[in-house]
Amino acid sequence: MAAAPVWSVDPRTGKQREQVAVEATAHEVDEAVRAAYEARSALADRTVRAAFLRTAADLLEGAKDQLVEAADAETALGPVRLTGELARTCYQFRAFADIVDEGAFLDVVINHPDDTATPPIPDLRRYKVPLGVVAVYAASNFPFAFSVPGGDTASALAAGCPVVVKAHPDHPALSELVAAVLRRAAARHDIPGGVLGLLHGFEAGVELVRHPLVAAAGFTGSVRGGRALFDAAAARPVPIPFHGELGSLNPVVITEAAAAERGEAIGAGLAGSMTLGVGQFCVKPGLVLAPAGAAGDRLVKSLTDAVSDTDAGVLLDHRMRDNFIAGVAERAGLPDVESPVTPGAGGEHTVSPGFLTVPAQKLTVPGGEHDLLLEECFGPLTVVARYASEAEASAVLSRLPGNLTATVQLSTEEAAGSGRGAEILAELTPLAGRVLVNGWPTGVAVAPAQHHGGPYPATTSTSTSVGGTAIERWLRPVAYQGAPEALLPPELRDDNPLGLPRRFNGRLER
Amino acid sequence: MAAAPVWSVDPRTGKQREQVAVEATAHEVDEAVRAAYEARSALADRTVRAAFLRTAADLLEGAKDQLVEAADAETALGPVRLTGELARTCYQFRAFADIVDEGAFLDVVINHPDDTATPPIPDLRRYKVPLGVVAVYAASNFPFAFSVPGGDTASALAAGCPVVVKAHPDHPALSELVAAVLRRAAARHDIPGGVLGLLHGFEAGVELVRHPLVAAAGFTGSVRGGRALFDAAAARPVPIPFHGELGSLNPVVITEAAAAERGEAIGAGLAGSMTLGVGQFCVKPGLVLAPAGAAGDRLVKSLTDAVSDTDAGVLLDHRMRDNFIAGVAERAGLPDVESPVTPGAGGEHTVSPGFLTVPAQKLTVPGGEHDLLLEECFGPLTVVARYASEAEASAVLSRLPGNLTATVQLSTEEAAGSGRGAEILAELTPLAGRVLVNGWPTGVAVAPAQHHGGPYPATTSTSTSVGGTAIERWLRPVAYQGAPEALLPPELRDDNPLGLPRRFNGRLER
Repeated sequence: MAAAPVWSVDPRTGKQREQVAVEATAHEVDEAVRAAYEARSALADRTVRAAFLRTAADLLEGAKDQLVEAADAETALGPVRLTGELARTCYQFRAFADIVDEGAFLDVVINHPDDTATPPIPDLRRYKVPLGVVAVYAASNFPFAFSVPGGDTASALAAGCPVVVKAHPDHPALSELVAAVLRRAAARHDIPGGVLGLLHGFEAGVELVRHPLVAAAGFTGSVRGGRALFDAAAARPVPIPFHGELGSLNPVVITEAAAAERGEAIGAGLAGSMTLGVGQFCVKPGLVLAPAGAAGDRLVKSLTDAVSDTDAGVLLDHRMRDNFIAGVAERAGLPDVESPVTPGAGGEHTVSPGFLTVPAQKLTVPGGEHDLLLEECFGPLTVVARYASEAEASAVLSRLPGNLTATVQLSTEEAAGSGRGAEILAELTPLAGRVLVNGWPTGVAVAPAQHHGGPYPATTSTSTSVGGTAIERWLRPVAYQGAPEALLPPELRDDNPLGLPRRFNGRLER
Repeated sequence: MAAAPVWSVDPRTGKQREQVAVEATAHEVDEAVRAAYEARSALADRTVRAAFLRTAADLLEGAKDQLVEAADAETALGPVRLTGELARTCYQFRAFADIVDEGAFLDVVINHPDDTATPPIPDLRRYKVPLGVVAVYAASNFPFAFSVPGGDTASALAAGCPVVVKAHPDHPALSELVAAVLRRAAARHDIPGGVLGLLHGFEAGVELVRHPLVAAAGFTGSVRGGRALFDAAAARPVPIPFHGELGSLNPVVITEAAAAERGEAIGAGLAGSMTLGVGQFCVKPGLVLAPAGAAGDRLVKSLTDAVSDTDAGVLLDHRMRDNFIAGVAERAGLPDVESPVTPGAGGEHTVSPGFLTVPAQKLTVPGGEHDLLLEECFGPLTVVARYASEAEASAVLSRLPGNLTATVQLSTEEAAGSGRGAEILAELTPLAGRVLVNGWPTGVAVAPAQHHGGPYPATTSTSTSVGGTAIERWLRPVAYQGAPEALLPPELRDDNPLGLPRRFNGRLER
């Protein structure tokens, strides 16, 4: 591999800002992974880990102005959104510090010997240990929350796993800044800087997932890129878990009664959700099933007004802009597709939001040309499919690939339990990892009950990249049989010196 | 695919007993998977599921004599062992019924809205739902416990997933008998027979893992077969989780002090473990690190005596016998390898147990011809590597692939905490899913704290195929956001009508 330069680019102008680094060679990938591997023992102590995560949050907050400015210069996401995203990122580090302190994630299970079982049970004590070095592939659209200091990094460090991040080329300068902050936080707790490696370059990313000392990977990005890395992870001599978030259409179903009750409000809400952040969210609603007829017409009219009023915006990079414009044109050119608000090129560096409509019936034909409308188009576009009957809406839903989210808009009466509300919820559940009622999918809270994942291609695994249970990605269980108390790790001792929640001889102790 | 006949074969004679079935065609695979898919809703109710599992245990017990006789005729494992294995299998069904009743596996997490969080948390409620149809690949060596009615089947049904089993060709007649019993149990609870599909044939197994409606797979078998199916699962347009148990060396470390204290007893114990069931256990100790010198010599002498006294036995099939004889010969022919008890062909249909010794130093050279000794040899063979120093033993351990188990034999003082006991435990933990002190790895208890899995190739995932947490293989989380109480499944309602253990607004409730 040649030492290709890595440039920071201003998406508002398409101009190079500065050379940040060079792409990592295979040798540099190896060095980063080995340094991370050597840092494992420094993360072994849960108290140290929790303190490190809290310091990371403090130092990121302390560098807020500099980081937000750097992020905005490379992403054009704007200071308001970026300040919020950084706050969320710090909140997430602290939430994982609390999770580390509590220790429920260790899933301690202890069985004393039981001769009445078949076969008899010996002394068995199980908990979870960190997998090892984790590779994290940063996303373009969340320079903080799904990048160097994002959920995968925070959850992996919380689990006790050092991290090597493959930076996203849309924000290399910010990535370097953030990595330096995290290493400063590590140093305060005598954790070597290798605990957080940072690499640039496409080839380096491929080398990374193939490295024998990498034990697991987290990825947020496109179906194409994610699948290629997933395949590489599976093809290794020793395959590793690959937790990839690849793509999602995020269907929304609007019932006839909901449209009749508040079609205008739903139209305006949808406009807000699909244009938020210039449509650059993995949970952007990309397919909307709205009723044909007058109530649905009012909804579409309201959507038309609101989207028309929305300013053009800058996408994260010019390749994305080209793809968006091409993707819109291809979809808008299909038969029976209309464009109440035509999305596409705004100014020289911007795109304007819009939406398409199509009879839902067109989406019920397997292998038809309209299947393109069932593929995610990254950017401020949504497709409104007008259904003539509940059966037609269900037929479209049954054809969808996996999603991060699925949403239903119900009337007040339906939400209260009359009508098909529960039935629709049951219909949406197989499609997604998060099912919303009378809300919009954009906005992914950091919470113990969160699940940000879903059937493929939403994710390549059954786990989540956001929320408390994300820590499960980076652990594996181990059981000790017949180990004397003197040799057991304190987590597994009868007297529970660390006060961990556990299952003790069948009883749940909290 | 032609309709090739499936024969039941007597391993004691190598003769065909009867034609049991024909290999399934692609069409028959499709039919079995669709029938299983249609049976999903019949498993939705946890009360019904638990009752079904208990009835399955009752009916299997009721058919004990017939089943044990059928199993012995095809496996030659003997009625004592098979009676025990069947009892274990029934115990396992009942243990999973208890797990279904308790409902902790649903991992319910509820968050009420919290405006103080960053970003604010909406109403979020998460639990786990069944993945769908599960493919189970039966093992040769456990006709009950890892086959049609085994841990994968029991845990998948407990999770709410219908199962299609690919029968092992070593016991097709028994597989048909057991499947019929399980379908009778299903019928008693109005569950369609499709809930437990059964297929014969290698090609059918490949079709099965590729079927679009198959959502996950469990496998117990060889590295070669398991890796091929793992690769097929990963290469699908929609990849699925593949939980495969492929192979394990199960290293045993015997400290100098342990050998000095009770070398004879250790030698005898090792002989018992490695020859149990004619060495046909996935947890058979296959590599033993014993000290050079007098104490180690006494251990080897005791092992020699005990193994010499062990009768020849019948392996599960003649291909296995051929592989064992060839594998032994290849290993015994390596330089510096000695054969205190030469294993190999016993009678025409049997093999005799034995073991090899080698200086541990020979196993520290990467890429050397002795690396063959670090590969599993299925059958009654173990390799005793004599180490001259602790460093040499550690060097061998550091070169091992992943294992189901790793064992250390410590002296009384070491077990009490003096010496390197804790250090060795820490050295063995990265190598295995179960770490034993002063025991033998054969015998895998069904218990909540059990973990039967380990780093690749021991398993292709981080989960277990034995014990309560095996149910996690077949579930995925889903979160509901803003869903009104009236529409929520009862598992997620505030008033907890089902009395489930859960995490409620951060607090663990049990």
